Amino acid sequence: MNSFFKLISENQKTKKTFLCVGLDPNLNFLPKPLTGQPEAVFDFLKNIIDATEEFSCCFKPQIAYFAAYGLEDTLLKVIEYVHTKYPQTPVILDAKRNDIGTTSEMYAMEVFSRYKADAVTVNPYMGQDSLEPFTKQKDKGVFVLCRTSNPGAGEFQSLKTNEKPLYKTVAQKVLNTWNVNNNIGLVVGATAPEELKSLREEFPEAWFLVPGVGAQSGDMNLAIQYGKSEKGGLIISSSRTILYAGKNSDYADKSRKTAQAMQEEMKCFF
Amino acid sequence: MNSFFKLISENQKTKKTFLCVGLDPNLNFLPKPLTGQPEAVFDFLKNIIDATEEFSCCFKPQIAYFAAYGLEDTLLKVIEYVHTKYPQTPVILDAKRNDIGTTSEMYAMEVFSRYKADAVTVNPYMGQDSLEPFTKQKDKGVFVLCRTSNPGAGEFQSLKTNEKPLYKTVAQKVLNTWNVNNNIGLVVGATAPEELKSLREEFPEAWFLVPGVGAQSGDMNLAIQYGKSEKGGLIISSSRTILYAGKNSDYADKSRKTAQAMQEEMKCFF
Repeated sequence: MNSFFKLISENQKTKKTFLCVGLDPNLNFLPKPLTGQPEAVFDFLKNIIDATEEFSCCFKPQIAYFAAYGLEDTLLKVIEYVHTKYPQTPVILDAKRNDIGTTSEMYAMEVFSRYKADAVTVNPYMGQDSLEPFTKQKDKGVFVLCRTSNPGAGEFQSLKTNEKPLYKTVAQKVLNTWNVNNNIGLVVGATAPEELKSLREEFPEAWFLVPGVGAQSGDMNLAIQYGKSEKGGLIISSSRTILYAGKNSDYADKSRKTAQAMQEEMKCFF
Repeated sequence: MNSFFKLISENQKTKKTFLCVGLDPNLNFLPKPLTGQPEAVFDFLKNIIDATEEFSCCFKPQIAYFAAYGLEDTLLKVIEYVHTKYPQTPVILDAKRNDIGTTSEMYAMEVFSRYKADAVTVNPYMGQDSLEPFTKQKDKGVFVLCRTSNPGAGEFQSLKTNEKPLYKTVAQKVLNTWNVNNNIGLVVGATAPEELKSLREEFPEAWFLVPGVGAQSGDMNLAIQYGKSEKGGLIISSSRTILYAGKNSDYADKSRKTAQAMQEEMKCFF
């Protein structure tokens, strides 16, 4: 197990939680008291982080929500805040990057050198060499899209390739061939519980990052039942349900209670 | 044909060129006179643009080369510079984005609202709904990765799905089903000439963005022979070969001559 997976694993055991809080700041949904404030997004995320860290094994900012608004500096500050105040709780930068090798080197620089994220999400469509600039960083985590949580995920991912669906072929390549540094996990949506179950049966030692509970309608309890493993790792990610639990001045408390309720459901699996 | 494809098509006919100059500023390769200059990247790209526009149908900045260095403002300035000085020559932002719908909305905002790009590259792995935020913008161009130019491209893209390789299934879905606004093209690497030929035979009306000539060893002449079409469109992209043709104070002139030589090869196909 590499240092990223070790850190997150220890955090999970201490707090009895699989919960990853997704940090997706949409300006249209910010709580009312923050509207028009100069540091609205940073203050919002800082308060959410402080309110939910006790129940979370990691945080996962989604880079598009910062890039759309030109908030790169805020993203930098958010990651630095977590690293400084909560060094036990790593940061996965959700970026789903993929490009030819020379360009992926630049994306890896963006994610790991500029933003100093502990892990990243990437897309496998272009093959192993396109992801090597990420996976060669032994102390970082790399989550490769396998079976995603969106409605159209199966359009290509479920196509039969050599008698098995593409997502299975991707999982096998990634975990059996690419994972020489033991730093790669898979993204598997909670909206696809049967696929999650089948992947867990085939890969008991793998790490799965599971988005799609809450707003995307994935069943959290089922995701834990199917996704947990003694030998492997499981991370359950929730963004909107936690972030936008409240709209008024008590929003952080509402987010805290939502995260706490999710962790309550999780702790019996430890 | 949508307004983006129409613009690029007119520019191609006027200049007798398929050439797209890729703008991938690597700080390690900048010409010597620019080293340490405060606006080195913008000045470099401005001079490259001015030197090569006469032979180019479009420009294609790759966003990772700006994001790695925190040069978002430079990217904004570069795109604005092209739009203001050369309105006949559109800008494709090479970003290869892909995510669930709500997040892709933010990526589309990044590409089209923030940077005001005329077109974008995207990754199809997550299916139609993941790209709809891009493709619904009728006046923009969207190039979907099909058969990429990197060495490991075939690892998944050439897997047999329903008796045909995955990249063919992607092409068919994208062009026959998703392309309701006639604004989608495919990315097909010049390093895969047989696949390019086969795709052109099946899709004579489609637009292909073809990277991989030059530093990636794709054969430009073959790419044009196999990729050109009376009814469809072809864009041949070259980055490093043009950008880094010179290292000294005459770098822009060297880039110009390289672009001109490529256009000389292209013009006989018009």
